[in-house]
Amino acid sequence: MKKGCKFGTHRVIEPLGVLPQPARKIDNDMELYDNEILIDVQSLNVDSASFTQIANEVGHDAEKIKARIAEIVEEKGKQQNPVTGSGGMLIGTIEKIGPALEGKTDLKVGDKIATLVSLSLTPLRIDEFIDVKMDIDRVDIKGKAILFESGIYAKLPTDMSETLALAALDVAGAPAQIAKLARPGQKIMILGGAGKSGMLCLYEAVKRVGPTGQVIGLVRNQEEADRIHSLNLPIDVVISDATKPIEVLNKTLEVTNGKELDITVNCVNVENTEMSTILPVKDEGTVYFFSMATSFTKAALGAEGVGKDVTMIIGNGYTKGHAEITLSVLRECKELREIFEKTYI
Amino acid sequence: MKKGCKFGTHRVIEPLGVLPQPARKIDNDMELYDNEILIDVQSLNVDSASFTQIANEVGHDAEKIKARIAEIVEEKGKQQNPVTGSGGMLIGTIEKIGPALEGKTDLKVGDKIATLVSLSLTPLRIDEFIDVKMDIDRVDIKGKAILFESGIYAKLPTDMSETLALAALDVAGAPAQIAKLARPGQKIMILGGAGKSGMLCLYEAVKRVGPTGQVIGLVRNQEEADRIHSLNLPIDVVISDATKPIEVLNKTLEVTNGKELDITVNCVNVENTEMSTILPVKDEGTVYFFSMATSFTKAALGAEGVGKDVTMIIGNGYTKGHAEITLSVLRECKELREIFEKTYI
Ligand SMILES: NC(=O)c1ccc[n+]([C@@H]2O[C@H](COP(=O)([O-])OP(=O)(O)OC[C@H]3O[C@@H](n4cnc5c(N)ncnc54)[C@H](OP(=O)(O)O)[C@@H]3O)[C@@H](O)[C@H]2O)c1
Ligand SMILES: NC(=O)c1ccc[n+]([C@@H]2O[C@H](COP(=O)([O-])OP(=O)(O)OC[C@H]3O[C@@H](n4cnc5c(N)ncnc54)[C@H](OP(=O)(O)O)[C@@H]3O)[C@@H](O)[C@H]2O)c1
Repeated sequence: MKKGCKFGTHRVIEPLGVLPQPARKIDNDMELYDNEILIDVQSLNVDSASFTQIANEVGHDAEKIKARIAEIVEEKGKQQNPVTGSGGMLIGTIEKIGPALEGKTDLKVGDKIATLVSLSLTPLRIDEFIDVKMDIDRVDIKGKAILFESGIYAKLPTDMSETLALAALDVAGAPAQIAKLARPGQKIMILGGAGKSGMLCLYEAVKRVGPTGQVIGLVRNQEEADRIHSLNLPIDVVISDATKPIEVLNKTLEVTNGKELDITVNCVNVENTEMSTILPVKDEGTVYFFSMATSFTKAALGAEGVGKDVTMIIGNGYTKGHAEITLSVLRECKELREIFEKTYI
Repeated sequence: MKKGCKFGTHRVIEPLGVLPQPARKIDNDMELYDNEILIDVQSLNVDSASFTQIANEVGHDAEKIKARIAEIVEEKGKQQNPVTGSGGMLIGTIEKIGPALEGKTDLKVGDKIATLVSLSLTPLRIDEFIDVKMDIDRVDIKGKAILFESGIYAKLPTDMSETLALAALDVAGAPAQIAKLARPGQKIMILGGAGKSGMLCLYEAVKRVGPTGQVIGLVRNQEEADRIHSLNLPIDVVISDATKPIEVLNKTLEVTNGKELDITVNCVNVENTEMSTILPVKDEGTVYFFSMATSFTKAALGAEGVGKDVTMIIGNGYTKGHAEITLSVLRECKELREIFEKTYI
């Protein structure tokens, strides 16, 4: 049996020397390397930007969407949209586990999983199309895929629907990071607190800093404030626009009695919110940017401009145990689960 | 005496509600607020991108450069290039300290300082132009400026030339951050190790992880490797291209006997080096991006794609004591100081 690289570079066909994600073409032969996992694929959850692009290109016709996806996978060995560069994730069942992974993985043959690494780097072979679910960007297929040794995944829980689990797993990095960062007694604010990652973070923050700390959710209107109140958790709400740093700072200091924060977490989905995330934090505090709309230079130069000695962290989509931590939130907080079921299913 | 905001928002004329840096116009009246410092200005070190733009615009004529700068300051109350958005820094002498800062600052009247916050947010009044030094982007003037309570600065040392000190202070955030992050026994690699920030970081790393740790400098050719060897420090050199992650990973593991690193520091000045910075680091290790060419999304999605549970930090230009830590490197390491004197003066 051939020995594979942890990151799957042994599957890269061209250009050589790059990782599978930037590669133009990877090898989707389903003969297993010693450190790979073979998945029997059930569904592709195509990334929303990618699905929309394909649907627009071919005119929202299910048969044409199938044909376009088949063509991409034929050409690249993976489901990576050549225009958006993005992929999505897949759901399937473990069919075979490479012998080099023995004792290194908690997976066993028959487990149902969602891969949490992008389809844009996952070797995939499609044998048959079953269905295209236009409204949820999902394509049901028969086929096989490979998970590399470094590839992350989540076992799908049996106590909630797949769609609910996937909605939460999509942003699993954020609450898991809070579990690691936050300590009892600290003051922490989540910007974009009524969004999908924001609500999970709020719950996790209450759990980690409480009962001696303070958790604040920043939202932009009363409707979102009410949503947070309906969680029935000890959370202070600030209504403000995250693109207005001075207003955010002043309103935050009002609810903390003038004390600066230990941690802020940016879960907002718009640009120009770096300074609102930095200003309310005390020296030697932590600023966690989960939002993909964050500008590296705006954060670096902004903190220097106001002389803030804060540690600014780039939101890594992965941290150990992130899937388990995130699914637990839905189990522990009935109110939050209800909101998720109403909003994201 | 009027009370000022820590961040100088009391000086913003338009648009109201923003910080001084993004403001179109700020108040440069030199009547002091209670928490401001008045500086008697000697030189403006105009940021290189800004100086080049102005010089090109007016045709590299000293008188016309003066006129253009006078016009900008007249219009905006600060020396912020309207095309590049950038400023630079200034050198001057403390003239007056607002009473609210008593006991809060280590400055006294007569101290000579360099401001380390950008001119793009510093209230400035130019009374007379003395000289334009084309080759070093410097404009000597008579004039006044205001340092806000949050404004960072460095007292200029008397044991080295101003230009040498300024060259090092420009990248002071990086070595100071290493001083905070690195612990004895750790393995740490600096990418771009032969550059300005890179060499300072290498010295600081040796000091903090030694003698039980390992320090590696990644450079792109033999000439740069020789430069690092000439420091006479226990540093292992890897010659590789930082835009090639797999090559970087393999060559790094060769010098560490297959062990992954605790910390990497990116001091490279080109794009697409995120993965080379992430791949060699062990789980729960730290990746510090000082380079302004870092892409937030490439780092966030890249780490997830390879399942790396690493803490990725955005290089804050400021951290407490950064000027002192950085100038100390030049004092402690004769070889490094000589290279700096040859290269950056
Ligand atoms: N780092 C990673 O690995 C990773 C992984 C997944 C997602 N993400 C990123 O995380 C971010 C959040 O994702 P999500 O799924 O939680 O998004 P979401 O559900 O859309 O939440 C975003 C929230 O921000 C609010 N918001 C927008 N503009 C605001 C403003 N000016 N002031 C205050 N609040 C504002 C939104 O309010 P409205 O609903 O009223 O607009 C919404 O509640 C996105 O940028 C996403 O790209 C990162
Ligand atoms: N975060 C902050 O607050 C802050 C503040 C100041 C500066 N910075 C940033 O820090 C970075 C470094 O600044 P610096 O003054 O130290 O720059 P520098 O002196 O130009 O050093 C950059 C080094 O990277 C090397 N390099 C370039 N491409 C490479 C590649 N493909 N592989 C390996 N090495 C490569 C360069 O080698 P060659 O000389 O052979 O090209 C050079 O030695 C810049 O991006 C700058 O914007 C950040």
